[in-house]
Amino acid sequence: MKRFLLLLLILFTINISAQTDAETLKTIYTTSLTNGKSYEWLDYLSNQIGGRLSGSLNAEKAVAYTKEELEKLGLDKVWLQPVMVPKWVRGAPEYAYIETGPGKTTTVNICALGGSIATPYGGLKANVVEVQGIEELKKLGEANIKGKIVFYNRPMQADLIQTFEAYGGCVDQRYAGAMEAAKLGAVGVIVRSMNLRLDDFPHTGSMTYGDLPNSKRIPSAAISTNDAETLSTMLALDKNVKFFFSQSCRQLADVQSYNVIGEITGSQYPNEYIIVGGHLDSWDLGDGSHDDGAGVVQSMDVLRLLKESGIKPKRSIRVVLFMNEENGLRGATKYAEVAKQKGENHIFSLESDAGGFTPRGFSFDCSDAVFSKIESWKPLFKPYLIHYFEQGGSGADVGPLKTETNVLAGLRPDSQRYFDHHHAANDTFEHVNKRELELGAATMTALVYLFDTYGIAPISNSNQIKD
Amino acid sequence: MKRFLLLLLILFTINISAQTDAETLKTIYTTSLTNGKSYEWLDYLSNQIGGRLSGSLNAEKAVAYTKEELEKLGLDKVWLQPVMVPKWVRGAPEYAYIETGPGKTTTVNICALGGSIATPYGGLKANVVEVQGIEELKKLGEANIKGKIVFYNRPMQADLIQTFEAYGGCVDQRYAGAMEAAKLGAVGVIVRSMNLRLDDFPHTGSMTYGDLPNSKRIPSAAISTNDAETLSTMLALDKNVKFFFSQSCRQLADVQSYNVIGEITGSQYPNEYIIVGGHLDSWDLGDGSHDDGAGVVQSMDVLRLLKESGIKPKRSIRVVLFMNEENGLRGATKYAEVAKQKGENHIFSLESDAGGFTPRGFSFDCSDAVFSKIESWKPLFKPYLIHYFEQGGSGADVGPLKTETNVLAGLRPDSQRYFDHHHAANDTFEHVNKRELELGAATMTALVYLFDTYGIAPISNSNQIKD
Repeated sequence: MKRFLLLLLILFTINISAQTDAETLKTIYTTSLTNGKSYEWLDYLSNQIGGRLSGSLNAEKAVAYTKEELEKLGLDKVWLQPVMVPKWVRGAPEYAYIETGPGKTTTVNICALGGSIATPYGGLKANVVEVQGIEELKKLGEANIKGKIVFYNRPMQADLIQTFEAYGGCVDQRYAGAMEAAKLGAVGVIVRSMNLRLDDFPHTGSMTYGDLPNSKRIPSAAISTNDAETLSTMLALDKNVKFFFSQSCRQLADVQSYNVIGEITGSQYPNEYIIVGGHLDSWDLGDGSHDDGAGVVQSMDVLRLLKESGIKPKRSIRVVLFMNEENGLRGATKYAEVAKQKGENHIFSLESDAGGFTPRGFSFDCSDAVFSKIESWKPLFKPYLIHYFEQGGSGADVGPLKTETNVLAGLRPDSQRYFDHHHAANDTFEHVNKRELELGAATMTALVYLFDTYGIAPISNSNQIKD
Repeated sequence: MKRFLLLLLILFTINISAQTDAETLKTIYTTSLTNGKSYEWLDYLSNQIGGRLSGSLNAEKAVAYTKEELEKLGLDKVWLQPVMVPKWVRGAPEYAYIETGPGKTTTVNICALGGSIATPYGGLKANVVEVQGIEELKKLGEANIKGKIVFYNRPMQADLIQTFEAYGGCVDQRYAGAMEAAKLGAVGVIVRSMNLRLDDFPHTGSMTYGDLPNSKRIPSAAISTNDAETLSTMLALDKNVKFFFSQSCRQLADVQSYNVIGEITGSQYPNEYIIVGGHLDSWDLGDGSHDDGAGVVQSMDVLRLLKESGIKPKRSIRVVLFMNEENGLRGATKYAEVAKQKGENHIFSLESDAGGFTPRGFSFDCSDAVFSKIESWKPLFKPYLIHYFEQGGSGADVGPLKTETNVLAGLRPDSQRYFDHHHAANDTFEHVNKRELELGAATMTALVYLFDTYGIAPISNSNQIKD
């Protein structure tokens, strides 16, 4: 019986080797769409665990759950990589209103930005200065800012096709807005949510005080886009309207956490590593389904789909679930540090951290020569409507692994809906479509298969795709 | 003052003519994303009017509303084209259960298929035969079918990337299932909903009795995918489970309705027509936002966006809002009939009837020579992530306009979520994303602009794109 099974295994392996790359991709996509696990895992992560802010109990539950699930896959190794992470807690729900006169108040939706300090006990009320950004703030200067709440209201640019570009053009207000306003004597900061849609959800996200001493730090919060419009309108009618907000968030001491790692060890080049990953932590307002539960479960499924498709990798393939991308990047830093110490050759690192929407392709951080090789694979993806192969940034978590010769990449899903949900209470499971998630997992697996098969050496006759 | 305005107009026109095509497309997309009207129109159509089944009061409201809105745009002509349409009404809500024994019943979610007859007064209860399709039904033959309810349960094929293909592979069960089962003596038909997702929504849609006399017709309904799974499982456990359903739908006499048409008359070739359209009627369960409110408002916005972008068409551009696509195609038939009578040369007809999701491209029904010309325009669309230019079907409403020389096309949005909503109670406004809808309108406008500029004559030096 054992011999029979061995024979079957050999026949099966030969069969896979004889497949063209196009056939292997077909097997991968079919397996993901008919027998994928990513959606089931995401259901658990989102609905049984929920938001997974670094240092929280939920983050630790997510570590335990994903480790356990990876252990069920029969990988060669699964382990936890310890890393200390910051622990910021939101505290009691925030409260805010616009005051147009004595007793005349309009409640608005805000949330503290991640890393912000609390308002003074009982809240903070002050006049408001609306600005379109840090440049305008600096022009206004201390005379106009001192003692006031600064309201950053530059919206995301609607006519940019790729919404991440619009985000990049606005996020400085959220990240550095409080620091810059504090330097000019502001008492608080309110930032228009990074959201292209008009709705009632405030969107949190990381911010920094830079080198500001504790005594100079001021509280900052995001306001929903609808309420940003309301506040702006009220200010246009009367410069003297006041804004009140109250939040009780704080930064605690760092706590122990982990990156979760699983590996299929390579059969021919075990010291060449290919990794796929997403970040296990999320913000606390929603359940982090798109950011980045999707990337986590897709990355886990890449290793499973390789196995299910009968692919035996030549190189070592790892899934890395990074801890603390949102407010510290400690997991990614630690992973790269350890990889360097061990002299591990990470030839290709792929990140999925742009939502679980229909995949459109990848952006690649690599040399022109290697990119030409990668572009030669593009026709293989056409049946799956994957068309976007561009040189560009990859992702925050794989970034620290960059060398002169290796390749980093980021999955690029359709981005139109992403910022409707990003860092907000409506980043929840029901907004993820099963097929779109599975198509993403398949697309990542297909790319990993090709990198495993052909490596990153410049193109030659010996590594033409099999068609 | 008048002379000054004229001068301004001339300068503006010259300015537009001097633009490269790439610049014109940029203007179109920016206008749609920052100053589009499609989402506002859809909000009204969906939330103030709602489902618009042919012959219903809502359908007439939609005719009046869209005509009024088109009249506000300053087009050269806006008119109603009369057409008689069928009027099928659902009646009281359907009710159904699975009976596993005396008093042991499980309620399930069904809806009558469009065009079905009612069950007998008090409902219909019978044993069930599950089949995977019409072929299996025929194999089973009258002996196994007579007196029973036929349950068509072939699911949509999950591993097809384009969901419309999966729909095409299943919809015969819904359309012809009752007719074929009736021929073998079945008393009723239940069809698994055309939905790739497991959920509780039954999805309606058209069906036919062909030439069957009234006395031979049997009622047919769709069952939700979750309940189809339940019924199938129960049948596997016990072949003798019974199914009960009750529905009171009926077909009334035809009523008067209209296609709604608006036109910008061409400045150079007024007798060459380019049309864009969607269908104004919808099913009655949801509000028809994706099917086809999206196509209606996008088509309306094409004419508006041309005007807003300062484009003065050489050819006549029409928006046609077709009545009765869902259960008769009477509007499309009428439009094509009148066009033929009048000898109107419809060189290009574009339909949007695949949902308001992120546009990916178009499929074109045309000769290879013209397709080569169209393909030469593809690079212009790359900045907008439009990559899908393929020869293939166009759409039901523009189909009757086909000639040997002209071009038909269908907008091809991302199709992954479409059948989650198609013909079901959850085809509603909140499932349409504003940007995705606007990108679709812009993409249609861009293509119309190019057809207006270069016509459909085979490519020559004189009609190279301006870059």
